[in-house]
Amino acid sequence: MLKHFQVPDDIAIRVNVDTLRSVTERIFMKCGVSESEAYLGADVLMFADQSGIDTHGVSNMLRSYVSGYNSGTLNPDPRLQVIKETPSTATIDGDGGLGLMIAPKAMDIAIAKAKEVGTGVVAVRNSGHLGAAGYHAMMAADQDMIGWCMTAGGKAMVPTFGAEPQLGTNPIAFAAPGNNEPSFMFDAAMTSIAGNKIGLANRMGKGMSPGWVANEDGTPDMDGGAVADFAANSVRMQLPTGSTRELGSHKGYSLGVMVDILCGQLSFAPGFGTLSRTRRAHFVAAYSVEAFGDVSEFKENMDGMLKGLAATKPMAGHERVYYAGLPEHEVRIERMKNGVPLHPEVIDWFRDICGEFEINFDLV
Amino acid sequence: MLKHFQVPDDIAIRVNVDTLRSVTERIFMKCGVSESEAYLGADVLMFADQSGIDTHGVSNMLRSYVSGYNSGTLNPDPRLQVIKETPSTATIDGDGGLGLMIAPKAMDIAIAKAKEVGTGVVAVRNSGHLGAAGYHAMMAADQDMIGWCMTAGGKAMVPTFGAEPQLGTNPIAFAAPGNNEPSFMFDAAMTSIAGNKIGLANRMGKGMSPGWVANEDGTPDMDGGAVADFAANSVRMQLPTGSTRELGSHKGYSLGVMVDILCGQLSFAPGFGTLSRTRRAHFVAAYSVEAFGDVSEFKENMDGMLKGLAATKPMAGHERVYYAGLPEHEVRIERMKNGVPLHPEVIDWFRDICGEFEINFDLV
Repeated sequence: MLKHFQVPDDIAIRVNVDTLRSVTERIFMKCGVSESEAYLGADVLMFADQSGIDTHGVSNMLRSYVSGYNSGTLNPDPRLQVIKETPSTATIDGDGGLGLMIAPKAMDIAIAKAKEVGTGVVAVRNSGHLGAAGYHAMMAADQDMIGWCMTAGGKAMVPTFGAEPQLGTNPIAFAAPGNNEPSFMFDAAMTSIAGNKIGLANRMGKGMSPGWVANEDGTPDMDGGAVADFAANSVRMQLPTGSTRELGSHKGYSLGVMVDILCGQLSFAPGFGTLSRTRRAHFVAAYSVEAFGDVSEFKENMDGMLKGLAATKPMAGHERVYYAGLPEHEVRIERMKNGVPLHPEVIDWFRDICGEFEINFDLV
Repeated sequence: MLKHFQVPDDIAIRVNVDTLRSVTERIFMKCGVSESEAYLGADVLMFADQSGIDTHGVSNMLRSYVSGYNSGTLNPDPRLQVIKETPSTATIDGDGGLGLMIAPKAMDIAIAKAKEVGTGVVAVRNSGHLGAAGYHAMMAADQDMIGWCMTAGGKAMVPTFGAEPQLGTNPIAFAAPGNNEPSFMFDAAMTSIAGNKIGLANRMGKGMSPGWVANEDGTPDMDGGAVADFAANSVRMQLPTGSTRELGSHKGYSLGVMVDILCGQLSFAPGFGTLSRTRRAHFVAAYSVEAFGDVSEFKENMDGMLKGLAATKPMAGHERVYYAGLPEHEVRIERMKNGVPLHPEVIDWFRDICGEFEINFDLV
């Protein structure tokens, strides 16, 4: 299911997760990040790399975080501030820290509120890249809660019938705990594909698939094939999930607006009233299952549902049906054993940055 | 935008909204529903009919409600019961009433809790058809809150890579208030199209569009053209939003599972642990904007965003870009003036049922 975006086996170099985690932590610390924050940032990245969410792992993201700290756009020592709160809500300012470490703190607040009054809903402004949204949603699931996490900002998604991008890829993550079955964990962009995946596909010499982007006049490119240059600051014209109006692109578009509202309008983040290219904000929420009924019964019912979905009669040409979270669970088991497959070029980057930061390079 | 599913102008009979509302109320009352409940049920139906959500208006739904009351599957005098609650949550049993009237009461509870502690989240079991989910979400928006409403159940959606239906169409509604601009109001099935729309299209002699349904072996029908018999109890094989894995059907599928969890698992409704065909449950939530910051500032920012989206440069062949809630707003203005367009066959049904119930028939 996730294979399309993975480094081909014949060139991949397998790196032990603990080794990769350790060097990642040390890189964060060399950027001025404290030891506990570096642990958290590395944990979010390892979650992605272990789970096969390679778009949000070290290979695709770490270098941009390092350059963010180096250029001063990211604050290595942020003081998170609660701007406003009620028993079940909080509006948070992340003080320019990296979202990887800000979002878990926002989720900690949401979980604490959910323990007290049933739910906790937290909107976050002034925070950098979120990392894999599924990590933050899973924090709630691990506490027997339903977890949400979203992030909004930038201009990548073209509204239905539009010819210019107005919204970010605006992913939604949602997690709910199973009992013996792997938890349900959904994490996906509301564009037909994550922006990172286009970059990753193109880096691997693959062209775009039909339905991924709009042509220059806004019409959906349903032929595919082109290899786009989606470098930073170039104009991106990604189609919403659904791709065309006939297939339901207004649903991806509207869910994208919903994410903008929950993250940006609810946190009163700058730029969300003007659809600014540089706007960014997050949203997390936790609903305590215990507030609604018996936790064991809920998790038993979840198991029944999840097993039922996985047992769906498969369509012609396929052997299995999955649910969100199941492939990631299986990849995690495999990678904990065999290591994370990295592209040789990523290994080279680690070697270089370790040299620059005077860190012992021990990945290979 | 909604035109495809409307009765063609040359055969439509325009009926005044107040007249339609009045006869609808009287029909509900003849089914044993109290006057206040009948008002509420008619209000939900009029919202749909006024807004151009014809799939959820009188023409498509009222006859099934009447037969539900007649056959005893719907309780005309339900006693709503709070099974469990915390300061921000409630689990509700609808006592077999129609969802049109149960959901507004659940939303009243959510709004009251949001006024007290910032948010209110309510899961509802044992309740019939919801009506237009957007109505219930808009109740929160009208109180300067963010509103959610979802409903789950049945077997219509085929999971990605599957060859049998496991989930309902599982719509998500979400509303947030603007200031001078029409509020954002999204309401859509997580299948590529609402089940009702297939029925409506087929009744109007239109074939299926590519991406709406799966072939018998589960493969997505990307050709379209067939006119399906989606009568009650026939097997429906609708594709999730995204239609194919390549276009993102796993997103529609997973959002559908999310809706099942929030509605069914959180309300501990029967059948959700076994993916039962007869399961049904709802979910509503309200987040008070005031809990997060200044309401006027929020609505000003919303206006800026909504105006910005509507001002997006249009794609070739289109003159305007919309946001969810804007076309409905414009249809509402037109229909309040010119009446609701009904198919002559629907008028005939009203004439018959009025005769049967000994109600004065004054629609035309």
